[in-house]
Amino acid sequence: MNSSFCRIVLIGSGNVATRLGKAFRSAGHSVLQVWSRNREHAEVLARELGAEALRHPDAIEATADLVLVAVSDSAIENVLGLRSWDNLLLVHTSGSLPMDVLVPFSTRRGVFYPFQTLSRQVEVNMQEVPVLTEASNENDLALLNHLGKSISGRVQPVSSEERARLHLAGVFCSNFINHMLALGMEYARKEGLDSTLLDPLIRETVRKALENNPREVQTGPAVRGDANVIKKHLSLLESHPDLQKMYTFVTESIQAFHH
Amino acid sequence: MNSSFCRIVLIGSGNVATRLGKAFRSAGHSVLQVWSRNREHAEVLARELGAEALRHPDAIEATADLVLVAVSDSAIENVLGLRSWDNLLLVHTSGSLPMDVLVPFSTRRGVFYPFQTLSRQVEVNMQEVPVLTEASNENDLALLNHLGKSISGRVQPVSSEERARLHLAGVFCSNFINHMLALGMEYARKEGLDSTLLDPLIRETVRKALENNPREVQTGPAVRGDANVIKKHLSLLESHPDLQKMYTFVTESIQAFHH
Repeated sequence: MNSSFCRIVLIGSGNVATRLGKAFRSAGHSVLQVWSRNREHAEVLARELGAEALRHPDAIEATADLVLVAVSDSAIENVLGLRSWDNLLLVHTSGSLPMDVLVPFSTRRGVFYPFQTLSRQVEVNMQEVPVLTEASNENDLALLNHLGKSISGRVQPVSSEERARLHLAGVFCSNFINHMLALGMEYARKEGLDSTLLDPLIRETVRKALENNPREVQTGPAVRGDANVIKKHLSLLESHPDLQKMYTFVTESIQAFHH
Repeated sequence: MNSSFCRIVLIGSGNVATRLGKAFRSAGHSVLQVWSRNREHAEVLARELGAEALRHPDAIEATADLVLVAVSDSAIENVLGLRSWDNLLLVHTSGSLPMDVLVPFSTRRGVFYPFQTLSRQVEVNMQEVPVLTEASNENDLALLNHLGKSISGRVQPVSSEERARLHLAGVFCSNFINHMLALGMEYARKEGLDSTLLDPLIRETVRKALENNPREVQTGPAVRGDANVIKKHLSLLESHPDLQKMYTFVTESIQAFHH
């Protein structure tokens, strides 16, 4: 790296590649090239980033500062097997894969994991996205931290083991809460109710949980041990057997957690 | 009611009585009296509201515009059985009880249900709390709507049946998401991780779910069908059997919901 700006090659054109690519460009870095198995997506993203869309990873620029591999966990090994990488810094963006999956491919390895739910089509304030970094040597870790700090207010080196556990905690705190919201709001709509009445409740629940210890601000019939309300809810759910099973399971989990 | 301000008697001194009592007072209404089975709590709340703390509900002022009964569902009948109510308007604040539980006690009945998670010690912006109203006659419904609009920007008459179903949806969208947050954040802390790294993820998950249909923005290994990540997470949870069971159950629910 000869200046404070990085010269980056992107592999992938999905949610993570799109959000990171745009953030890098906004911060003044160069995205030189984009390669993706989906050539059409690669061309769209390359155009947005002022980059070249490649037909094959063989054409990747050997003088790039890093190659960011933002593809699904199961695709990484196939994609990297398409060429040899000499001395290029290969960096993956996975929450759950250890850095060492890159061992067969290069001596310079790293991880650049944005700890956030990212969608191609949903804007996100990158400054507030924690970036968890890791690298196989100190110079490359410094490079990844520098790159991270140029787009985010919170960059933290984290080991592969810790990153995997944070990612797992994130499944409960993000994927699972989104699913509870989907179940509750879809139930309301199916019953012909105005589901927007739930919005203030949802916002306040999260605000309160984050400003306190969520264990201590748990409310509702399960933690109160209100058997009558629980029984009534289960009878209201008789025509929704999947919701009824979920209600029973989570209610028992709340009671076990609090007693 | 002779003016635009109401003369209110409060029964109860818990989360709902405290939050509503303060909101009424701020809006210029008079809370005349407070009675609660917990005399000490009644005295504290009465002092805060400039009201009289009663020793027995017999002393309740017969000229009050309404008696707001903000006690737990299971206590309502016992409390109201302590005296006869003549022509007083009795109003409960329960999400799950029908208005008709008040039939044995008075000819004038109503419901005033703040659809929000309320805690005595946590401030809340009442303007953003939907108030769901119901009454046994039109004049009393008008009174409750008037009272609601003086503290909240969103007041809506809702039948007992609809209110019970909204309350049930709220269990999924509030109590259950708080529990997922408690499980995820406590796991992170137990593993020695910095659980505040989860905060931006949680905020963004909820923002995204509320601005879209949560079914359509579901992310994570379950909806992607990423069997390797799921297997790895289950092995990380081997020393947390309760979390492992929850992980399996919700993962299967997400997969059934999306296929």
